[in-house]
Amino acid sequence: RSGEMAKLTQLIDNEVFRAYATYATIVLLKMMLMSLITAYFRITRKAFVNPEDTASFGKGENAKKYLRTDPCVERVRRGHLNDLENIVPFLGIGLLYALSGPELSTALLHFRIFTGARIAHTFAYLIPLPQPGRGLSWAVAYAVTISMAYKVLKTALYL
Amino acid sequence: RSGEMAKLTQLIDNEVFRAYATYATIVLLKMMLMSLITAYFRITRKAFVNPEDTASFGKGENAKKYLRTDPCVERVRRGHLNDLENIVPFLGIGLLYALSGPELSTALLHFRIFTGARIAHTFAYLIPLPQPGRGLSWAVAYAVTISMAYKVLKTALYL
Amino acid sequence: RSGEMAKLTQLIDNEVFRAYATYATIVLLKMMLMSLITAYFRITRKAFVNPEDTASFGKGENAKKYLRTDPCVERVRRGHLNDLENIVPFLGIGLLYALSGPELSTALLHFRIFTGARIAHTFAYLIPLPQPGRGLSWAVAYAVTISMAYKVLKTALYL
Repeated sequence: RSGEMAKLTQLIDNEVFRAYATYATIVLLKMMLMSLITAYFRITRKAFVNPEDTASFGKGENAKKYLRTDPCVERVRRGHLNDLENIVPFLGIGLLYALSGPELSTALLHFRIFTGARIAHTFAYLIPLPQPGRGLSWAVAYAVTISMAYKVLKTALYL
Repeated sequence: RSGEMAKLTQLIDNEVFRAYATYATIVLLKMMLMSLITAYFRITRKAFVNPEDTASFGKGENAKKYLRTDPCVERVRRGHLNDLENIVPFLGIGLLYALSGPELSTALLHFRIFTGARIAHTFAYLIPLPQPGRGLSWAVAYAVTISMAYKVLKTALYL
Repeated sequence: RSGEMAKLTQLIDNEVFRAYATYATIVLLKMMLMSLITAYFRITRKAFVNPEDTASFGKGENAKKYLRTDPCVERVRRGHLNDLENIVPFLGIGLLYALSGPELSTALLHFRIFTGARIAHTFAYLIPLPQPGRGLSWAVAYAVTISMAYKVLKTALYL
């Protein structure tokens, strides 16, 4: 069994794979942060969606008035959904890309630009910055994912 | 080629990786169940969103009245989205964690608590249980994912 | 280090894994296309959700009237969310399935049917086709994922 473990350790010891592991984890932690920001705005702005969440504000109409949408909460939620839509492809395509034998420097470039662009996207969405700030950061991360997909298909294509 | 297959089989024979495979599959099947529950409530409560879905109820105004939102349907959909937001990080970080060489017993603890907490979260959301039932189950699964992310970054960090 | 690289290359040289890499990438690119279609309809139908996105249409009430929902935009967004709900399980379960040592022909059958069904689902949703077109394509991809999950649990079960 220690032989198998060694093999797994070799995978995590590979520098490209370690870089993928690092940036994938960072970008997922960033996405998870959106849940906390949503909760923060729901509580401070008293804007909830589930009746059981407002029970501590009392019964009946008094609690019911906090079942409402708030522009700030909705903005964070849109940012969160946009993360899901873009980070899921990065997770899948990035893993396959890391296994397709890219140069370490090329792989780092892809992972760093993607991660930087998605962090910039979050700031652009939440502040919010004027367009095309958000649009550009979205497009950069999108293009990086397409570039990795091209490498995966070029290396592994088996239809 | 049988040599390569042997190597892949070794990966799936590794106990930590098998545990990851098992719990990741269980938690994804649980998430997929949300689609069936949504469909069940849409049909029994006659609450649809696409006009083509109500065509069997007749034409014109008669069918149109079933294009509406229903609190039960919306609740299941919120639970489903919450699953996506939390199970996607588990899938990615959990895979990297399984490859980072954790102790089997520690890994099992992480996978079991996450899976249990997400199943509890679904019950808390759908019944619904009074708070902090749903909040606590969400927080436990969130904390487990953070703990795995910490191990991944400690083992693999390569910026 | 070239020894490690060789091992990673062996993974991507395995035919089942290459087939997974190919179809997972195709289906993720298809999902990413939904973002572009959403953007296309938002721009052509002038239906935006963020005030900063309408700034180029002028100030005040003139720009505000484009902050609205449009049935076409909402339809594409529902298709996109449905992709997320179904492609995330395929990504996770499909990867574990590819590592569980299936026959190449059986694996190809699973990956091809899933990918075909999800592409059909997108056409059925966007055209839209009358039911049960969308429902059937959804169910076929769902059943393929369940079949792969069964194989994973049969091979790897470790609770």
